[in-house]
Amino acid sequence: MNIVIAGAGLIGQGWAIVFARGGCAVRLWDGDEAALARATTLISRQVNELENRGLLNDAQAVMARIQAVPDLALALQDADYVQENLPEVLELKQTFFSTLDTLAGPQTVLASSTSSIPASAFSEHLAGRSRCLVAHPVNPPYLVPVVELCGAPWTDPAIIEKARDIMQAIGQKPVTVNKELRGFVLNRLQGALLREAFRLVQGGYVSVEDLDVTVKDGLGLRWAFMGPFETIDLNAPEGVADYCNRYGGMFQDIAQEQTSIDAWDPALVHTVDQQRRALLPAADLLERRLWRDERLMALLLHKRQAEISQDAATS
Amino acid sequence: MNIVIAGAGLIGQGWAIVFARGGCAVRLWDGDEAALARATTLISRQVNELENRGLLNDAQAVMARIQAVPDLALALQDADYVQENLPEVLELKQTFFSTLDTLAGPQTVLASSTSSIPASAFSEHLAGRSRCLVAHPVNPPYLVPVVELCGAPWTDPAIIEKARDIMQAIGQKPVTVNKELRGFVLNRLQGALLREAFRLVQGGYVSVEDLDVTVKDGLGLRWAFMGPFETIDLNAPEGVADYCNRYGGMFQDIAQEQTSIDAWDPALVHTVDQQRRALLPAADLLERRLWRDERLMALLLHKRQAEISQDAATS
Repeated sequence: MNIVIAGAGLIGQGWAIVFARGGCAVRLWDGDEAALARATTLISRQVNELENRGLLNDAQAVMARIQAVPDLALALQDADYVQENLPEVLELKQTFFSTLDTLAGPQTVLASSTSSIPASAFSEHLAGRSRCLVAHPVNPPYLVPVVELCGAPWTDPAIIEKARDIMQAIGQKPVTVNKELRGFVLNRLQGALLREAFRLVQGGYVSVEDLDVTVKDGLGLRWAFMGPFETIDLNAPEGVADYCNRYGGMFQDIAQEQTSIDAWDPALVHTVDQQRRALLPAADLLERRLWRDERLMALLLHKRQAEISQDAATS
Repeated sequence: MNIVIAGAGLIGQGWAIVFARGGCAVRLWDGDEAALARATTLISRQVNELENRGLLNDAQAVMARIQAVPDLALALQDADYVQENLPEVLELKQTFFSTLDTLAGPQTVLASSTSSIPASAFSEHLAGRSRCLVAHPVNPPYLVPVVELCGAPWTDPAIIEKARDIMQAIGQKPVTVNKELRGFVLNRLQGALLREAFRLVQGGYVSVEDLDVTVKDGLGLRWAFMGPFETIDLNAPEGVADYCNRYGGMFQDIAQEQTSIDAWDPALVHTVDQQRRALLPAADLLERRLWRDERLMALLLHKRQAEISQDAATS
């Protein structure tokens, strides 16, 4: 499988690791040759780090599958799939997808990492618009496996399927978003929960610190390996319908009080910020991010081992 | 510390384990003596299971701290804290708290496990109403450490503090809910996210299966050890205010589309149920619950080890 990563910034670097780790031949392209050289160094460092953590086998073989290619036309020869990672500027994407559509062979899937621009906005004018889609990762994609796939109305369903198969083959977790939608699925779920979190702080019901405890030592535990629907499906004897029958009334009542939309109001943001800075001074943010990455890697390794040991137990 | 567990059903059994594991002397009371005997057997089985999993040390010592006491007045002698676990019926709680308030010494904290009845509803009529509160666990409390503490308007803040200290001392994670609130914090956050999840399925944007993937392989990973506020605080260079400045507009736009409250509509529940039953037949629910408990225990052990190894690294 030949993969082209277009744009060698942070997201492009992450994708290069994901595809190479998954066994693909990766051609990394960037319009800026110096950026391309820098990216290769950074990728190599990260790949070694992941090997040390047990999250990747054979760093040398992975690096051997990544090639920096400064000539876009050359990079696109016989490409099966392109993952574009340019800045979030519509005109840039439109122009670049025109170029891709001209240079890439007709079998090549053209995907964008954009989190905010729908595929329809950058592909409408193209002859090959039916092969364009968004494949939105979570950063960093070599740690967080979910990828949201969302086509334009004219995207060929077979192309979505192909992108899904590729993601599955390299060990990512594809989610198909069937129609274009602001924020896709992940950010809409995050926004809904954050909105209630802000509301509870605004009303003085709970501190920022305790709200986080409610999730990390309660709600978030099952969600980290089941998701919200399976969680409620297993929380009533007869499954999700039974659960909704028992608790839907309570949630419906609560919902009446959850319709305000001023979560992102500056005064409220200031309140949350003050509480966070009291818990973690700004000077410690960087160190805490390293802590987060440590914990995330450890959690992923744990999940992988839990899945392996359960597969072994059931086989 | 002398703890009385009143009501020896599933929740009462869970609490008995939590307090005894935390080093407290536990007196387990139930109006039904046969239920009390059954509970002791079930607790012993569970305590041994937790020891086998590495989630509890010295099962024998833990069991030695639990005593079944069929006489309530005797159980309450010199009690520091009572955790009530009767059925969710207001009249039952009102009568029982009257009894508790009469029999228990003035220093005893009186807490209810109720998830749906505010402390004001069962304590208003009591002479000792200032020592009553709700301490709402997540089931099972020996695996999920969060406890929501919520007093009535007349609950003495010192009593909330005392309950909080006790919970902390036994290794639970207390969350203080400052004012009475339907659903407390955990279920309000769960409801907000589920509402958007239902809405996305209703609109045909995503399948039930893929929605769960979005959380368990994406959003839920960081939430399982940080919570939602710390997650966004670390997701922008300058912290949460910076994050809201960058992404608040997007979330605000999304919020406009998230105000409908028909999430728990029967037709929609039916759709979700059909998709879940296609993924997991009703006959497999029981086995999948055992899988969930395995995974939850493994995740908790992982979290404990991750915390220990990081404490060691920073000391």
